[in-house]
Amino acid sequence: VKRKERSVAEYVEGVLNNDRTILAQAITLVESNAAKHMEMAQQILNALLPHIGKSIRIGITGVPGAGKSTFIEAFGQFLCEKGHRVAVLAVDPSSSITGGSILGDKTRMENLARHPHAFIRPSPSGGTLGGVHRKTRETMLLCEAAGYDIILIETVGVGQSEFVVRGMVDFFMLLALTGAGDELQGMKKGIMELVDAVIINKADGDNKPKALAAKEEYNQFLHYLRPATPGWETKAYTCSALHGEGIADIWRVIATFVTVTKQSGVFETRRRHQLKDWVYAMIKDYLETSFFANPRVKEKLPLIENLVMSGTKAVTAAVQELIAAYEGRD
Amino acid sequence: VKRKERSVAEYVEGVLNNDRTILAQAITLVESNAAKHMEMAQQILNALLPHIGKSIRIGITGVPGAGKSTFIEAFGQFLCEKGHRVAVLAVDPSSSITGGSILGDKTRMENLARHPHAFIRPSPSGGTLGGVHRKTRETMLLCEAAGYDIILIETVGVGQSEFVVRGMVDFFMLLALTGAGDELQGMKKGIMELVDAVIINKADGDNKPKALAAKEEYNQFLHYLRPATPGWETKAYTCSALHGEGIADIWRVIATFVTVTKQSGVFETRRRHQLKDWVYAMIKDYLETSFFANPRVKEKLPLIENLVMSGTKAVTAAVQELIAAYEGRD
Repeated sequence: VKRKERSVAEYVEGVLNNDRTILAQAITLVESNAAKHMEMAQQILNALLPHIGKSIRIGITGVPGAGKSTFIEAFGQFLCEKGHRVAVLAVDPSSSITGGSILGDKTRMENLARHPHAFIRPSPSGGTLGGVHRKTRETMLLCEAAGYDIILIETVGVGQSEFVVRGMVDFFMLLALTGAGDELQGMKKGIMELVDAVIINKADGDNKPKALAAKEEYNQFLHYLRPATPGWETKAYTCSALHGEGIADIWRVIATFVTVTKQSGVFETRRRHQLKDWVYAMIKDYLETSFFANPRVKEKLPLIENLVMSGTKAVTAAVQELIAAYEGRD
Repeated sequence: VKRKERSVAEYVEGVLNNDRTILAQAITLVESNAAKHMEMAQQILNALLPHIGKSIRIGITGVPGAGKSTFIEAFGQFLCEKGHRVAVLAVDPSSSITGGSILGDKTRMENLARHPHAFIRPSPSGGTLGGVHRKTRETMLLCEAAGYDIILIETVGVGQSEFVVRGMVDFFMLLALTGAGDELQGMKKGIMELVDAVIINKADGDNKPKALAAKEEYNQFLHYLRPATPGWETKAYTCSALHGEGIADIWRVIATFVTVTKQSGVFETRRRHQLKDWVYAMIKDYLETSFFANPRVKEKLPLIENLVMSGTKAVTAAVQELIAAYEGRD
């Protein structure tokens, strides 16, 4: 039998009461691409607007194998035990390619998933990074309305996903490994300039001296960079998620960050700019999507692109032709 | 009396014969925003298409005071004396604000400007970075058709202009100073990951030991980064543009770069991707410009933006309203 459809008011009340079933269903609405669901999701979000924005939003990135799940599980449990309510989300635009979400998977964080104060939601699958961005952001807002006061957003850093997560969170950290070659881990283009902390995980057993050396190396490197957040010095720290060592220290760093940036006004300014940037990002995403999904553009693009790349058609002429096709003037 | 108007054929012939007056007039057409001029410019560029792309395109960035003019003058004269023909262009989106072009100014490069094998053109003034981008790129193509085999493109690195120049050139270098504080010069976000060489200028007199120390420091730092060009190691070099020292070495580095990347295919691949990227960049620029120039959008944007930033309007609702205004559905 088909599930009884809920009204907007029922969703709103359910989310505010942190009814986990209703919260999950509201997220499903937000993740749906059906016009009817999107319309309803917007009504729900509008009604919840006064109840959002009160969490601390933390982004976590790192190469596969850096131990993000283990870290998030240890960190999340620590926070739950301190009385916080923790929602774990993920941004993984590759999940549309790999045919399923690889992040935020409950089976990877069994203990945290069982905790009554934790809520884990995998990355929305399918669609563009712009779509994943919107869905994750709105899921975050629903979780805030449901009373989760700490949001952890995980990403593997495919393509531009780190910029997307940086644009969603207050504090952004890179989880790094050591002892795998002489280069700094995760030294993806520009990533070091986005983060507020570098966490060298697996600082345990034989690996501990290497982790401490890596910490020094990172700090040396970070010294050269402009910090991601004005008035905050990005530094490297070690921890062992496996043994729970250093977890409390990382939380202290984040708590200090929040105090410092709230005092300086940087916290609030960033939040306001993020809202504005989201508007612009969504408009650009809409404009580009409607352009490149246009049937006449889709038909003409491959040939024109080849002519341009082989040097037989001028760029501006190509652009004019594509725009004419889009506007039905061809 | 009004200047006699030239035909497309006259422009094409004049440019191919490197008639400097006609070349300058063709560039003025390219820089014009009048529909009639743009149309004519496109016809000229189309006719010249078989004659373009045969130069080496070199980008030069650096903070104000790094000595870019002195360097370009010395480097340009060296190249002219070696038998090359050198065009100097500039990308300076700020020239629309400062009310005139501050780059590529002939008065700053008097000796080079007088050389019969050199052609200097200041940054197009006015308009968006997208507009400056297109105009500079098309000016570069005209110069290539006129037989300039080395194109130097200068930028101060305002906003995104370094990314624009990186997307136009084969070889990109950062001109840096030393002895001005303990931080690496020009350490703008991401810039070090864009360049193929760092040139420490003013390595003369008392400053020479400092320049050599800065070179070491840069090389240490560069070691950590992924190089801007696959198969090429970005390194730091010293020179004294004032005394002409190190100029020949820098040319040897660039010549090696060209040989290596042409052999590996990276040179040609980058050129092809730049053409494709230009198409996409121009389309995005067009879409955004026509959206934000729309009278209904312009009217609604400030209020909606404020409502979003103060948290009283949801982002998605704001976006939907603006799109409705754009499409005349409000």
